[in-house]
Amino acid sequence: MTYTYKYPHPAVTTDIVIFTVREGALNVLLIKRGGDPYVGSWALPGGFVRIDESLDECAKRELAEETGLSDVYLEQLYSFGEPQRDPRERVISVAYYTLTPSENRELKAGTDATEAEWHPVSKLPALAFDHSDIIELAQKRLAAKMEYSTIGLQFMPEEFTLSQLQVVYEQAIGRELDKRNFRKWILSLDLIEETGKKFSKGAHRPAMLYRIIKPGQVEIIR
Amino acid sequence: MTYTYKYPHPAVTTDIVIFTVREGALNVLLIKRGGDPYVGSWALPGGFVRIDESLDECAKRELAEETGLSDVYLEQLYSFGEPQRDPRERVISVAYYTLTPSENRELKAGTDATEAEWHPVSKLPALAFDHSDIIELAQKRLAAKMEYSTIGLQFMPEEFTLSQLQVVYEQAIGRELDKRNFRKWILSLDLIEETGKKFSKGAHRPAMLYRIIKPGQVEIIR
Repeated sequence: MTYTYKYPHPAVTTDIVIFTVREGALNVLLIKRGGDPYVGSWALPGGFVRIDESLDECAKRELAEETGLSDVYLEQLYSFGEPQRDPRERVISVAYYTLTPSENRELKAGTDATEAEWHPVSKLPALAFDHSDIIELAQKRLAAKMEYSTIGLQFMPEEFTLSQLQVVYEQAIGRELDKRNFRKWILSLDLIEETGKKFSKGAHRPAMLYRIIKPGQVEIIR
Repeated sequence: MTYTYKYPHPAVTTDIVIFTVREGALNVLLIKRGGDPYVGSWALPGGFVRIDESLDECAKRELAEETGLSDVYLEQLYSFGEPQRDPRERVISVAYYTLTPSENRELKAGTDATEAEWHPVSKLPALAFDHSDIIELAQKRLAAKMEYSTIGLQFMPEEFTLSQLQVVYEQAIGRELDKRNFRKWILSLDLIEETGKKFSKGAHRPAMLYRIIKPGQVEIIR
């Protein structure tokens, strides 16, 4: 079966940038490509838009197929359309992104992906296509969103310490924050409360575990 | 000549939302469609991406061809890809937007557009496709950008009064601002200075004309 048009048509894909904070560092979800071009290279999960699905649906489907992740809120980031960005044909990619907790998330590679893994953003492998540009823009957008905003809370597990929360903010914004000012700010919002439980790790003093008071009131990233 | 593919391909367009403030109201630039579908309807300027041009190039070219406007800095807004948004075939549109001064801008309809005109956003005619959704999102993005930001200055003519500047901010943000607070804020930034000249209109007291001290220092919308 072939499809014929009077004018040349580009192909359209979605590519998905999923950030998480793991072991104190900002990570991004990459897949290993199972097919040409760039077979064996690391890349963002993503793929071609089906003729009858919306862009959002395509991003969710490709993410689930290639990494096993579902139920992730994705925000559209930007469309990348330089004419030579794909060696096969003209491909325009609509990029999506989000930040998500990585706990309790089992990764499972599938379809065009032979592996799916978190990689620290600070030491990424060589990536296929212009995917490092896409990650760079996503990181900038994430930093701008987090600054002076409570959206960081939605990326936390059910219980967390203030230090863990601060690490998520620092990693997403890309710079260190003053501990006292950060705690004062986040507690002044009346969005989180003590659980009464403590968390201890290694030689550190046990730290209070917090939870979100009304999860519905925390801003969604948009 | 025809073009054949193994999988169905969407067409890709760019659509461009140009805002301006005219006679104290936010306006958007519309063209009257010269061809099917929606012939004779008002719509955003825009058109199909050529196979060898970037998305940015397409947006600039279509804007110039259909409205005569060039030298406009365009920012990518969002890609609209609902499968049924165009009656002809699957068309994904990458939307761009900006706010620009309308003075000294001569409009000149061309190619697929039989007219090009500014329309107040508060009373738009019925629009082709999902173009009213595109304008609505562009207006939200514009409001978010202007709030607490100096980008409003780049949309002013060479000389302007503080009242004219406040109107631009109020129209873009979509609500009234306190006159004293606005003036205090904008003057505290040391970005504008008095020209020494005054502007008078009708029965109003002549108002001081201001200019930007160092135009290069004013933020570009992004």
